[in-house]
This record gives sequence, C-alpha cells and structure tokens, in this order.
Amino acid sequence: MQFNVNSKVLEKLLAKIIPAVPARTPMPILENFLFDIKDGALNVCATDLEIALRSSINVATDENIKMVIPARLLFDIIRSLNETQIHFETESNSKLKLTTDNGVYNIGFSSPEDFPAIPTVSEEKEIVIAGKDLKRLIDQTSFAMSKEDMRPAMTGTLFEFTEEGLKFVTTDGHRLVKFINKNVKTDLIEQYIVPERAISVLTKLLGETDVKMYLSKTNISFHIGDLEFISRLIGEKYPSYNSVIPMENENLMKVKTNELLSTIKRMILFSTSNSKQVKFSITKDKIEVSAEDIDHGSNAKENIFCEYSGEPMDIGFNTTYVNDVLSHIEGDEIIFKLHSPTKACIIEPSVVDENEDLMMLLMPVRLNN
Amino acid sequence: MQFNVNSKVLEKLLAKIIPAVPARTPMPILENFLFDIKDGALNVCATDLEIALRSSINVATDENIKMVIPARLLFDIIRSLNETQIHFETESNSKLKLTTDNGVYNIGFSSPEDFPAIPTVSEEKEIVIAGKDLKRLIDQTSFAMSKEDMRPAMTGTLFEFTEEGLKFVTTDGHRLVKFINKNVKTDLIEQYIVPERAISVLTKLLGETDVKMYLSKTNISFHIGDLEFISRLIGEKYPSYNSVIPMENENLMKVKTNELLSTIKRMILFSTSNSKQVKFSITKDKIEVSAEDIDHGSNAKENIFCEYSGEPMDIGFNTTYVNDVLSHIEGDEIIFKLHSPTKACIIEPSVVDENEDLMMLLMPVRLNN
Repeated sequence: MQFNVNSKVLEKLLAKIIPAVPARTPMPILENFLFDIKDGALNVCATDLEIALRSSINVATDENIKMVIPARLLFDIIRSLNETQIHFETESNSKLKLTTDNGVYNIGFSSPEDFPAIPTVSEEKEIVIAGKDLKRLIDQTSFAMSKEDMRPAMTGTLFEFTEEGLKFVTTDGHRLVKFINKNVKTDLIEQYIVPERAISVLTKLLGETDVKMYLSKTNISFHIGDLEFISRLIGEKYPSYNSVIPMENENLMKVKTNELLSTIKRMILFSTSNSKQVKFSITKDKIEVSAEDIDHGSNAKENIFCEYSGEPMDIGFNTTYVNDVLSHIEGDEIIFKLHSPTKACIIEPSVVDENEDLMMLLMPVRLNN
Repeated sequence: MQFNVNSKVLEKLLAKIIPAVPARTPMPILENFLFDIKDGALNVCATDLEIALRSSINVATDENIKMVIPARLLFDIIRSLNETQIHFETESNSKLKLTTDNGVYNIGFSSPEDFPAIPTVSEEKEIVIAGKDLKRLIDQTSFAMSKEDMRPAMTGTLFEFTEEGLKFVTTDGHRLVKFINKNVKTDLIEQYIVPERAISVLTKLLGETDVKMYLSKTNISFHIGDLEFISRLIGEKYPSYNSVIPMENENLMKVKTNELLSTIKRMILFSTSNSKQVKFSITKDKIEVSAEDIDHGSNAKENIFCEYSGEPMDIGFNTTYVNDVLSHIEGDEIIFKLHSPTKACIIEPSVVDENEDLMMLLMPVRLNN
C-alpha cells in the first residue's frame, strides 16, 4: 500500500482527531489512530471509549487497508515538518515508512482487530443548530456540572428538547443553570445527558459552521463540516430539577454585575477557611458584602449600591459559587430573586435576548453568626 | 500609625518584591512582607533566605514602625482594587486596617522580631553593566546549570571577572557554556557562584536599566533602578573547567543552525528509550542524523547539508542536550569543532559580535552499535 499526502493537509486532519486520544489510559490501543484507507479516502479516527472523532481526506492509493498507528508520534512528526510531500508506504514487517525529500521515518503499526468499534448513530433524528449557538449553550452552563460521581446524571449536561426550544441544564446540587435557545425547534420532547468530557472537547470544535446533531438511545453524534464527533450518553434519569426552582421569590434585588463580581473576587481572598462563605446584608439601596477568615484573623467588608424591594435580609453564599455564577452572566445588570435566607435564590440577567432564556439558581449557606 | 497610598503605586511596589516570597516554605514568617516605615518612606522587603528583594516609596506618615504582613493576601487585595486611595492604619489588636471609599479590610500583622535580617552588601566593589547585557549573559548560559545537588558549585552560574571581561560559565558535566561580555572591564580577577534560584528571578527583573553589582564574600547585590536584589553566593570552588576544553579539535563542520535544530526536534520523538541518543554520520558535505526507539520499533533518518573538513566520523549525542545547545545559539550558521567520537565537541556560532565570545561544549555519548 502506498500514497502521497501533503504534510500540512495531513496535519490539519490529525489535529482534528487527536483530542479524542486519551492522555493516559490502561488500554494502550487507544493511544493510536485507526487509519482506514478505502476506495481513495483516508479515514482517520480515534476514541477513548467515551468519545470518538472521525474525519477523512482523499488520497490516491492502490489498495484498501486498515491499520493502527501511534497517534502522538505520528502527529508530532507531521506537525514538525515544514510543508512537504510525504510518501506513505507499508513494509512487510508491520512498519509504516514515511519518506520526504530529506528524511525517512519508520513507525511500527498494528493490526486493527483490537481497536474498539466506533458507534454509528442513525441519522433518523436530526437537529440542526448554529455552531455559535451550541457553543453559547455550553459556555453558559458547563461550569455547574457536578464533579462528584455519586450521581452520574449530574456529572453531565442535560440536553432537553422541548416545545420552547433546546434547553441545557446543569446542576451539582448547590447551584443550577438552565439556558434555553428558542431557535431550535424540533418535534422531539426528549432528554439526553451528555458527559462532561464530551462537552469540554465539543466546545473547542465549535465555530461558525452549522452543526447537525443525531441521537440514539446510547449515543449522540455531531457533524461539524467534515468532522464527526460521537459521544456516549449517560444512561440515567436526570433529577426532576423543576421541583427545586422556587416559584414565588418576590423580593427583587438589582445590582451592577461587574461591581458585585469585583467585590466577590476580593471576598474570595478572605473566605479561605472551611466555610468559604460570603454574607450579603441587603437593605433598600445597599448591599454590605462581607467575609471573614477566622483562622488568619482577617476580614473584609464592602458596600455596593443596589435596588431592593423587600425587607432587609442577611443571606450567606459559598463565595466560589457566587463567583462562578456572576462570571457566567452577561449584561450590565443582574437581578437576584430572593425569598428568605434559607431558600434557593434565583439570579437572572436583567435583559435577555428574545430567543434565549437564562436562569441560575444558587442555594444559600447558613451564616456562621 | 497611619498613611495614605495610591493603590496602583503600592501594587507596583509589591509586584517588584513578591518574587522573593517563597511559594512553599517550612518557615511561615517568610510568607510575609517586612514593612519598615521610617522617616517618610515605606520600605518593603521579602526573602526566602537565599534571595531577597527590597524597594521603597515615599509616604507621609506620623511615626516609624516595622511590621510583618501576609504577602500574598496583601498583594492580591491591592491588585484586585481599581485605582483608589487607600488609608492604612494600625489598630491596637495587631490588625492593619485598610480603608477605601467602598471597603474596609482588616489584616493581622506580626511583630518584625522573627523576620530574618536581609544581608547588606558593602558598596566597595561596584561593577556597572547594561541590563540587557546581563540578561543576555544569563539567557545564553543558564540552561546548562546542573540540576543535581551532588556538586553544589555546578548548580549555580559562575561569574568570573577577568581581564577579557565578565565571563559566565555553566556546566552539568555533560555540556558546558562559556559566554564573555568584553565590555565589562574591572580590576577584579575573581570568581563568584550565583545560585540557580537567583539567576531565574534576576532575569525577569532585567530590562533597559543599567545594573550596579556589589560583591562580598557571601553575597551579591544588584541595584536595578530603585530595586535591590540580593542573593547569597555558593561558597564552593568552581571546577577548573578550562582543563576539559579541548585545544586541538581540528575537524570543522559548518551547518545551518535552523536546519539542524529542526531535524533534532524530530529526532527527539524517536530517541525516547533509555539512551536518548542521536547519531551524526558526518561526511564531506552531508550529515546523516539518525535516531532509533528500539522499544517501539521506530526510527528516523535525515540528511542535512554541511561543510566538513575532516575524515568521515560517526558520533553520538544526547538528543536533549544537542537541542538545548542549538536552541541557545544565535546566528544562521554554527561550527562544530570535532576531534574523535569519544572526545568533547565544541560548538560555536560562525559569526560573533566583537564584544562577545560564546563557546558551548558537548560531551558525546557512546553509540549503541
């Protein structure tokens, strides 16, 4: 078997696939690309058993062959070459020989039998979404996925297809984010849970290109241009999150996002002891934000202007969680919807795009004093 | 005690001193700044016992006081503030109170008794050098300092004041770098060894500003504008390195620096097994550079044009060391001065500035075959 390929063309192809190659794995076979050379196309794929990436280029070759090639070694060689023609040739001793004008590189390859099958997802259920819309759904929600394996469903992102549009939900029990893109209309009324690893790889693949999503019971596939990204789904039931969203948080507090975020970033410096808490003492036109590091005998207090409609209230939050939420809300102003110091608080931007809906929920923490 | 200071002015001062605060230390006192407020100046210093940094600004204050303040906490607060006036005030309970328009921050401070004394270096021996010249001396040589504690002298950089100029020497036994700046003329004929930590901090402090160096038996001090940087010296004798520099390496090989470096970067991918070696097969007008990863059954071979005056020679090097050396030589062309496959090889730029002299020495490794 032999073919020629331009080094930069091959580099571009491999760069798309390499994110699916695991950095560490107990299964060495996963550290390889599967090269499937078939009928004038070089199909390359890689998988870590959770996600897989697949793409191809045209090559003029003399025979069909599948082989398994060390992914990082091949990618590192190809990208370290200046633009040049590379001649690929298989040798009888399971060596792949790459020849350029100045160099010869021999790499051992293996047979493809042990390489895991990449799931194929039927194209029956197709949903089309703009790349930047999908990226935005992810960027606004992914931070709140749970890092704890206790409840596997919560370690992923809920893709919920509803009459309203496509809804992304993430929660770790302490905070919850719900973001709706109303442009995505489908007949599906269904829920799928996509794992964290897939979300974090997917967001880097997204750009202006439209994305076609396909769904099966066990897998989701994203077609982005000539790249296919496949992930397994988490086969669990997502918690019925609607029951924790309070309906009657009648006390509204409006505050400038950047002012509060900047204050919170200083409070993080003082809330380093176990509680990691920040206290909001809210009155009609002022929040006094305070934190105390009892271990080091330091404390901080700042006043911020707000507009608040309810009775004065002291409420405590985990400083990191407030910081996360505020860092992911766009717009100059946000609204806190409050009920009492022990009930969930809702945070929303004061202005939203008509095609979107964003809600963040934050559980308060019990104040030390 | 109280004084006012602009947040950005203080931030600039603290940013200069913080590099001397150790990231981890068994002595918690070192995680602090020493504030020495005296006669209208705020002097700030920090030390990790090996290096120290000291600088000051003018403040209008009512009394003289020394205190020890948590360095990272203070620095993080100050730099997270927008530009504002900060009022500093000591309270009776060992608290330092910082007040801004919107906030109040209390930080515990300690008494200065346990803070280690910062060495003072007599200004008797003064050497002046341009900041960029000192930076260049460091940047060309620091990579070859030894990482092993067996011979402490070799873990530092030799500052050798000679009639030729200021000479920097580093070696780890496998390679040696000697770089001379002929502009630095002094009457001193002396050797000092500066530790690696000092070198790595110093290089970040250097810019266009002239540097005054002061030397004592135990310490070196660098005055860079209003900043003083002090380091202990390594009190050992530097190996007599001149004896390992071969005099009669009569076989000269000239090669394009970038071509060889680019080849070496690919060879690194193949020389991953124990030996980490790359083989140079040198003939009149060509080097065949090759490497082999026996464990993974892969190998590589490239041809590069060269001009070589001697008999054909096969010589092996540690791939990483060749890469280091080539990455630190400037200029389009370099010259390898060779004698035999078992003798030290000298590598020099083919053109040098008249005020400089650079020599790199590389020990070959025994070839596998």
